[in-house]
Amino acid sequence: MDYDGVLAGLTLESGAKILFLVADGLGGLPHQETGRTELETARIPNLDTMAARSTCGLHDPVLPGITPGSGPGHLGIFGYDPTTVRVGRGVLAAYGIGFELKPGDVAARINFCTLDAGGRVADRRAGRISTEENQELVGILGDIRLQGVDLFVRTVKEHRAVLVLRGEGLDGALTDTDPQQTGVPPKEAGPLRKRAEKTADLVNRFVVEGRRRLKSRHPANGILLRGFDSPAAIPGFRERYGLKAAAIAAYPMYRGLALMVGMEVLEAGESFESQVETLEKAHAEFDFFFVHYKPTDSRGEDGDFDGKVQALEALDSHLPRMMKPGFDVVVVTGDHSTPSTLRSHSWHPVPFMIHSDWCIAGATRAFTEREAAAGMEGRIPACCLIPLALAHARRLEKYGA
Amino acid sequence: MDYDGVLAGLTLESGAKILFLVADGLGGLPHQETGRTELETARIPNLDTMAARSTCGLHDPVLPGITPGSGPGHLGIFGYDPTTVRVGRGVLAAYGIGFELKPGDVAARINFCTLDAGGRVADRRAGRISTEENQELVGILGDIRLQGVDLFVRTVKEHRAVLVLRGEGLDGALTDTDPQQTGVPPKEAGPLRKRAEKTADLVNRFVVEGRRRLKSRHPANGILLRGFDSPAAIPGFRERYGLKAAAIAAYPMYRGLALMVGMEVLEAGESFESQVETLEKAHAEFDFFFVHYKPTDSRGEDGDFDGKVQALEALDSHLPRMMKPGFDVVVVTGDHSTPSTLRSHSWHPVPFMIHSDWCIAGATRAFTEREAAAGMEGRIPACCLIPLALAHARRLEKYGA
Repeated sequence: MDYDGVLAGLTLESGAKILFLVADGLGGLPHQETGRTELETARIPNLDTMAARSTCGLHDPVLPGITPGSGPGHLGIFGYDPTTVRVGRGVLAAYGIGFELKPGDVAARINFCTLDAGGRVADRRAGRISTEENQELVGILGDIRLQGVDLFVRTVKEHRAVLVLRGEGLDGALTDTDPQQTGVPPKEAGPLRKRAEKTADLVNRFVVEGRRRLKSRHPANGILLRGFDSPAAIPGFRERYGLKAAAIAAYPMYRGLALMVGMEVLEAGESFESQVETLEKAHAEFDFFFVHYKPTDSRGEDGDFDGKVQALEALDSHLPRMMKPGFDVVVVTGDHSTPSTLRSHSWHPVPFMIHSDWCIAGATRAFTEREAAAGMEGRIPACCLIPLALAHARRLEKYGA
Repeated sequence: MDYDGVLAGLTLESGAKILFLVADGLGGLPHQETGRTELETARIPNLDTMAARSTCGLHDPVLPGITPGSGPGHLGIFGYDPTTVRVGRGVLAAYGIGFELKPGDVAARINFCTLDAGGRVADRRAGRISTEENQELVGILGDIRLQGVDLFVRTVKEHRAVLVLRGEGLDGALTDTDPQQTGVPPKEAGPLRKRAEKTADLVNRFVVEGRRRLKSRHPANGILLRGFDSPAAIPGFRERYGLKAAAIAAYPMYRGLALMVGMEVLEAGESFESQVETLEKAHAEFDFFFVHYKPTDSRGEDGDFDGKVQALEALDSHLPRMMKPGFDVVVVTGDHSTPSTLRSHSWHPVPFMIHSDWCIAGATRAFTEREAAAGMEGRIPACCLIPLALAHARRLEKYGA
């Protein structure tokens, strides 16, 4: 489903405001004893009432049956096709620690590893060194200088770090140096196309110099790189949708993904309450607000059914205040399902509601998976959500004469 | 909807087993008097109970409104896009008589025809000669030898037969010799691309020699060829889905289609009971079982509403025994609809259910067209079914970081 050629020239500037509320990992599965999902168990009167007045349905973030990672999940609900637009591991890792990648940057995941006397990988994770030791090693590597490029090395956690190269003419189409097995030496980074040759050369020089500086360390005396990539070069929300868009999210990864699609990331505290305050304060300045709510996913991944129910109830309690500033369109959905019974992201389609003055409220009486399945919107790809929101905001002209 | 680049690298080996039960021509239409479809009329308590515990929906084998032949119908439910992957008439005809085509073979449909003294087609079906006469003629044509290629000529029925060429460098991109009208001479087979020239030449030499040998016969003194094609060169179930797949089917055409997608075709008797026995015996050896049930389609094509109802009831009675060996995922569906009132394949979307531990059983209370339409899965392309089955079998990794 390709909106690219269709949306161009259709978007209208208008004062209409859209609230796009994403409860991460929203969808669930029935509890073994009660037969009710987390959404069906939770007391969420505000969401239920809004669903009954909305047009509802289920969306597939990628394709039916495909379980999305956070990158593809958000690309999908932001209206991009995750089967063609990819976000590499290095880019997500950089976003995940709040590193603000710029267009053209190349990012990669670093694993600190143990090399034996023959230079072969003995432990791909260097015995999972402490985060403190990681920080020390990152300090050593961060001093490396290479001509014509800025280098950034940042700690993630334990044996994991991030490398970012910034400069002219870089290209992230490189093969990993991580051989994904022990007993063999690390590989060289190889260019996957002609114009990545310079970047491959820079990376390999970084690795050689890094190894020299870590030689006497133990157990982390080497590094493995994988997931080279640049932030996707895609038209942002302004260009694609004519929207001045803001993002309010506690977790760095989602702020990074929002940046990548041209949203302005607003400062907000850690608590969801403080994020709602930010929404209130910024209300006048933007057309579109992406508000990200993480606890639903976190409790789902913990396998904590009751915790996810409580996270939904907490979100519900914030809804009246969130709505108060006034929005022409409110979309509530998730980036994927995270059933507590599976303790992980899943492939199940995700409930959504679109609330505006231009809805046919269908058979949906509550905001649940089963009720959404009976909604007017049926089952659609996630990339339809923003065009639908634009339509409900009267921000799209007629297509064709 | 393109899974090609998405599934690559996501499939996991696991012990999870999938039963894929295809009732050919499953979907129907309401009886004029009762207003109930065949599925709604049949007493199928086992299927109904399973549907109520499954996630259900309707699938389109090709596209909404398109009535599929058996080739596209099965390609669709096997997860291939029938709008880009084609199975030619010659290939299907060869499969239909149990001829095991190999990659690179070129197959075509033969019509025995009557040519007048001027070499013009007088009867495209040679008065529908008997199958016995057909066999005699096939014996004559089967003796033809052409350098560098093996020839196989096989009887189908009445005036219909199959030609298969096997050898190096063959290409089935040829135009028909059948002019599709009388009063004109047969055409020469023409190459549709450069590398089909050799094959066109071989075919035309076969036709000339065949005509020479049949000259004195009456009424079948000539042959017309159409539907040249090779078995589709597509990644099979092992490569595409990571599945060791078996097929249990009484009819040769379905065994052929299963072979084409890399399934192992198991020996089984003519009765469905003996096929269920084969399923039991082979249970330990495969990950995936395609079980094909033909009577639903046959009775539908006969226009025998009651007969189709009985065929559904008979299938239902086998279900408990089929389930007994234990499957992690059970899919029940059809390759297309065959409403008795239409006496033919139809374009109506086809009910399906997916049963696993990871379902939200929806509003579906029975296994019918109307109940499936109210199911959690909505209406999806047929090519989603196998990815969904893989997901429910936990045989797919997360897509993207």
